Amino acid sequence: MLNCAVLGATGYTGAELTKLLLAHPHVRVSILTTRQEKAIPIEEILPSVSKKIKLQITPYSFDEVKKKADVVFLCLPHTEAMTVGDQFLNAGKVVIDLSADFRLKDPELYPKWYGVQHNFPARLKQAVYGLSEVNRAKIKKADLISNPGCYPTGPSLALIPLLKKKLINPDSIIINAASGVSGAGKKLVAATHFCEAHENFNAYKVNKHQHTPEIEQNLSQAAGKTVKITFVPHLLPISRGILATLYAEPTRQATEAKLRKVLISAYGDDVFIRIKPGGQFPSTKEVQHTNFCDIGLSVDTRTGRVVILTAIDNLVKGAAGQAVQNMNIRFGFPEEAGLL
Amino acid sequence: MLNCAVLGATGYTGAELTKLLLAHPHVRVSILTTRQEKAIPIEEILPSVSKKIKLQITPYSFDEVKKKADVVFLCLPHTEAMTVGDQFLNAGKVVIDLSADFRLKDPELYPKWYGVQHNFPARLKQAVYGLSEVNRAKIKKADLISNPGCYPTGPSLALIPLLKKKLINPDSIIINAASGVSGAGKKLVAATHFCEAHENFNAYKVNKHQHTPEIEQNLSQAAGKTVKITFVPHLLPISRGILATLYAEPTRQATEAKLRKVLISAYGDDVFIRIKPGGQFPSTKEVQHTNFCDIGLSVDTRTGRVVILTAIDNLVKGAAGQAVQNMNIRFGFPEEAGLL
Amino acid sequence: MLNCAVLGATGYTGAELTKLLLAHPHVRVSILTTRQEKAIPIEEILPSVSKKIKLQITPYSFDEVKKKADVVFLCLPHTEAMTVGDQFLNAGKVVIDLSADFRLKDPELYPKWYGVQHNFPARLKQAVYGLSEVNRAKIKKADLISNPGCYPTGPSLALIPLLKKKLINPDSIIINAASGVSGAGKKLVAATHFCEAHENFNAYKVNKHQHTPEIEQNLSQAAGKTVKITFVPHLLPISRGILATLYAEPTRQATEAKLRKVLISAYGDDVFIRIKPGGQFPSTKEVQHTNFCDIGLSVDTRTGRVVILTAIDNLVKGAAGQAVQNMNIRFGFPEEAGLL
Amino acid sequence: MLNCAVLGATGYTGAELTKLLLAHPHVRVSILTTRQEKAIPIEEILPSVSKKIKLQITPYSFDEVKKKADVVFLCLPHTEAMTVGDQFLNAGKVVIDLSADFRLKDPELYPKWYGVQHNFPARLKQAVYGLSEVNRAKIKKADLISNPGCYPTGPSLALIPLLKKKLINPDSIIINAASGVSGAGKKLVAATHFCEAHENFNAYKVNKHQHTPEIEQNLSQAAGKTVKITFVPHLLPISRGILATLYAEPTRQATEAKLRKVLISAYGDDVFIRIKPGGQFPSTKEVQHTNFCDIGLSVDTRTGRVVILTAIDNLVKGAAGQAVQNMNIRFGFPEEAGLL
Repeated sequence: MLNCAVLGATGYTGAELTKLLLAHPHVRVSILTTRQEKAIPIEEILPSVSKKIKLQITPYSFDEVKKKADVVFLCLPHTEAMTVGDQFLNAGKVVIDLSADFRLKDPELYPKWYGVQHNFPARLKQAVYGLSEVNRAKIKKADLISNPGCYPTGPSLALIPLLKKKLINPDSIIINAASGVSGAGKKLVAATHFCEAHENFNAYKVNKHQHTPEIEQNLSQAAGKTVKITFVPHLLPISRGILATLYAEPTRQATEAKLRKVLISAYGDDVFIRIKPGGQFPSTKEVQHTNFCDIGLSVDTRTGRVVILTAIDNLVKGAAGQAVQNMNIRFGFPEEAGLL
Repeated sequence: MLNCAVLGATGYTGAELTKLLLAHPHVRVSILTTRQEKAIPIEEILPSVSKKIKLQITPYSFDEVKKKADVVFLCLPHTEAMTVGDQFLNAGKVVIDLSADFRLKDPELYPKWYGVQHNFPARLKQAVYGLSEVNRAKIKKADLISNPGCYPTGPSLALIPLLKKKLINPDSIIINAASGVSGAGKKLVAATHFCEAHENFNAYKVNKHQHTPEIEQNLSQAAGKTVKITFVPHLLPISRGILATLYAEPTRQATEAKLRKVLISAYGDDVFIRIKPGGQFPSTKEVQHTNFCDIGLSVDTRTGRVVILTAIDNLVKGAAGQAVQNMNIRFGFPEEAGLL
Repeated sequence: MLNCAVLGATGYTGAELTKLLLAHPHVRVSILTTRQEKAIPIEEILPSVSKKIKLQITPYSFDEVKKKADVVFLCLPHTEAMTVGDQFLNAGKVVIDLSADFRLKDPELYPKWYGVQHNFPARLKQAVYGLSEVNRAKIKKADLISNPGCYPTGPSLALIPLLKKKLINPDSIIINAASGVSGAGKKLVAATHFCEAHENFNAYKVNKHQHTPEIEQNLSQAAGKTVKITFVPHLLPISRGILATLYAEPTRQATEAKLRKVLISAYGDDVFIRIKPGGQFPSTKEVQHTNFCDIGLSVDTRTGRVVILTAIDNLVKGAAGQAVQNMNIRFGFPEEAGLL
Repeated sequence: MLNCAVLGATGYTGAELTKLLLAHPHVRVSILTTRQEKAIPIEEILPSVSKKIKLQITPYSFDEVKKKADVVFLCLPHTEAMTVGDQFLNAGKVVIDLSADFRLKDPELYPKWYGVQHNFPARLKQAVYGLSEVNRAKIKKADLISNPGCYPTGPSLALIPLLKKKLINPDSIIINAASGVSGAGKKLVAATHFCEAHENFNAYKVNKHQHTPEIEQNLSQAAGKTVKITFVPHLLPISRGILATLYAEPTRQATEAKLRKVLISAYGDDVFIRIKPGGQFPSTKEVQHTNFCDIGLSVDTRTGRVVILTAIDNLVKGAAGQAVQNMNIRFGFPEEAGLL
């Protein structure tokens, strides 16, 4: 049994990850920590496991985690994960970071998009970006896995194979995405008060969302050239789920059939990626509480554009589920272990 | 007092229109009709007026409506409004049609997008498209006002002034829109069952929605050339509201400030159109139960694209409210009468 | 025109009241205040009036309010309204208090249920409880009107006529009530975070809610003896609305027809109270955004119990609407002015 | 591996049961049937299993089911299950019926509450009522298990131990319950249209719900005398979950501590029943997607009444989950198999 630590187990992502690990056949949850000063019984954050599982989430102690865990999952706020991750790498642990702190290769993007200097640029080089289906080979050998952001996951999975095959014009990409409220975290802010979010829909951080450079990094690697995208996130009155609606120009030879075929060929054997047949499109409900990424597409012959839709559960494939999938890959478990 | 008839008062649009007309200071609701065979007390469709207002929605009779009404509002299904509208025009009434039956100038678009032949092409020429702020002068003298569709209203209001000034490239327009469930009407279908729509979000009729040619007609007139758009509608788990997120390429000279200035200049005196200052964007909640169309925009200097957001209440500015506004314009009432 | 002040205009109740007063034909909103240190444009709390109305919510100043207002509405937190109310009464103003500070006649109930001493017991005697349909005669002459709590309004309206006629056993009353989230106010707490309240339902303050003594006071007055009730409030995943389900034992002669007749006779001429016919029951949606209190009832001959259901909008009849109704009564306006 | 058939797999209950059985370690789903005429791929009703599991829901054939299944789950409409259940019992199968057709011992209750004659009164005698924690011993040996209704499950689990110990007055019981919309099934009716159910709350079938005699049967057995209850169900704007708020009079010696102790003693070893400590109460969210029944209680010393709250997921402990639990008991699997 692999011993797992979850640091920051009280947030939505940490709780979801804990839930998945507790049900995983090949691992043991050996320690859960919080930045709060008092221990918290696990049922306070995961009422669904109470009476079945007795565990405490304890105030964070580096030494305790070091002693008890083989793999350390970081569900910490951005900027905090940087330092903690470095420490556990130095201590010889495998680190799977769910924050943004190791996602961008170019350290100069951090001050620009996250408003902070990055103190461990060497770790940025070392980190393997945990987009499971795309980076499987590297993840297998990584000691620092940087789990993708919730918004980048779906669009990157859909666009990377198409860009690699030069089937869409990399300068034409627009990503219109909408996320459930859990994506905003547990922090109490006016926008997530029930009376504000319920029966409401709006865009936010228009042209300014910090996931923009992460998506651009993924797409640039696939395209072999610098890609700049337009990205507009929206807040949905649902708890969980992201639907991304992508717009792009196919290159000349790219019919709808051709684009679909390339996606099927890229992901045909990957259990968690499902390509919808023509005329069918994903919905957030169909992937809720699952690790699936569903992809549908339609080429409009009137305008020559392709519309691609992707759906994930932001807490599963967009965070905790993909983290488990990456752990499975890294430690040689079946890729879907604990995720079915 | 102007005598009003509402045909099809039991649907969501008809009920909303009836509610607005009942509170209107200058009109009398003289007859409400239904295609059902038995009369329906008004409180069954408008519980909020019961005890205050006694009215029956009666089985439709052409002669009764002709006798009692000066203006006839058609809240009938598409294709049915065609014939009924023609009859009341022949009878000398002013007709305000909330269906799609008189919206498109080119009769050949009907078989293509609505699956039916149009039997009254001459009426298509006669009809004035009731986009209130844009067509005010023509609406003043119209006997047949064709009220705009819910999706076309916001995007058309935002884009027409910009296209007229050649500030955006007409070939670059993408409209990503999301509507509350009332837009789908009262009919019982699986997609609007609570358990399916709640906690869900998905696109539908991708590249195929029948409002596409209506939007294109509006934009083509403004651009002075044929405009083709990409339009993807989505279903939101809210009752009322449409948010449209528009993507386009500004032409060379068009800064964000310039675009905003043109919109303010176009609508500065129009009480129902509000242009958001820089960095602020509309939300469906802020316009719910109002006749407002809110517009916000952001030019991304990284990609050179402009993102424009518009929000309306689909049952008010997107249907019944704009119909009342058009009636006010046509009959010389203050434009905001009954709508504040 | 009557000059009105709203103190605490930024909360949900204050904003709703401001909206109603702005649309009222016989009053002027002469000042809106906040405890915050900077002025707030009205559109920040009432986006639906922006562009139509220019007003600022200004930092509270006793002298300003005294100068500008004839009637002062207090939408202040409990315990704060006490002192402010006393001051404006001393200044000769009519005070309509929407807090609980003047609702209970017995000052000893305040420490017990609200955890504070009451400093103005003489004002408790002076205050007229603003249950409009029941206390109309006293409200007409009151200088201090204490607006009822949201939970007490529906049950009190339903039970008072029945208790007066000795048709139900006063020792048998159980009130099971459920409120929309706006009843909990704008304050950010975990229970009102979208992800916690959405898709959830639970009871709270079981047997301990501070509205219990207010309801008991109302019912005791009607019964002519001390009444103790069981009251369990629940939190509904909706924005607005309270449904109360009351259980009681009718006294011997009380058939369902008899009970309904007494209610119709008590409220037959009151436009805002609607008694449902047999077999029909109220719903929160039917009263949302209205000042109605809907009442339905069913006597179960199997068990001998009566079930009574009442529905109101907690922000309208349960707060701001009833406050306006009381103002109308006090100043001789038509009772429904500004409320239709 | 035990071979299972699910008859009526396309409804909400049938789909949930199928999902649970597919993940169960000790059974095989050998056949799924529908009353529809064409086969349906399983992903249409369970999108979350597509790509992982290939199965068809096939048009119902008695012979096919008989050939393929050891245990037959009936997720059929009331009255239809009667006949089909009898047939499979005759064929020597174990039948677990999720309809109401075998729940009531007294055949005369069927015409009264369900409007139909019962054609197999001998089967009513044979049937074991599958309230798992209460009837475990009988379920172990039963060939016909009648799975409890969604509403009766929570209140019966809470009240049976208290009635057996004579700790509450059996004539004093009132059950106020609220269910998510999935409880009303997949059928398209106006009340479950998103626009009607969303942002709404109301009672229905007041004093008339068909689960009343089922609850009374359970309570009467526990009390050793005929018990009549008042039962009022309500419709919640959530997908899944039932919260029941019970009111009763404790008998003289019954303090809150005593009542809690009896419940803990009755269910202390039962993993799926959780008794909340004093001052804590259940919520539907805490049991959603689980087989738990959570119970909390409060004795009000002011009125002498006890308030008991129970929460379940109506599709799991209220239907499919309890059916699996009963199968586990019947076939000697660990009781929580496939349910954790």
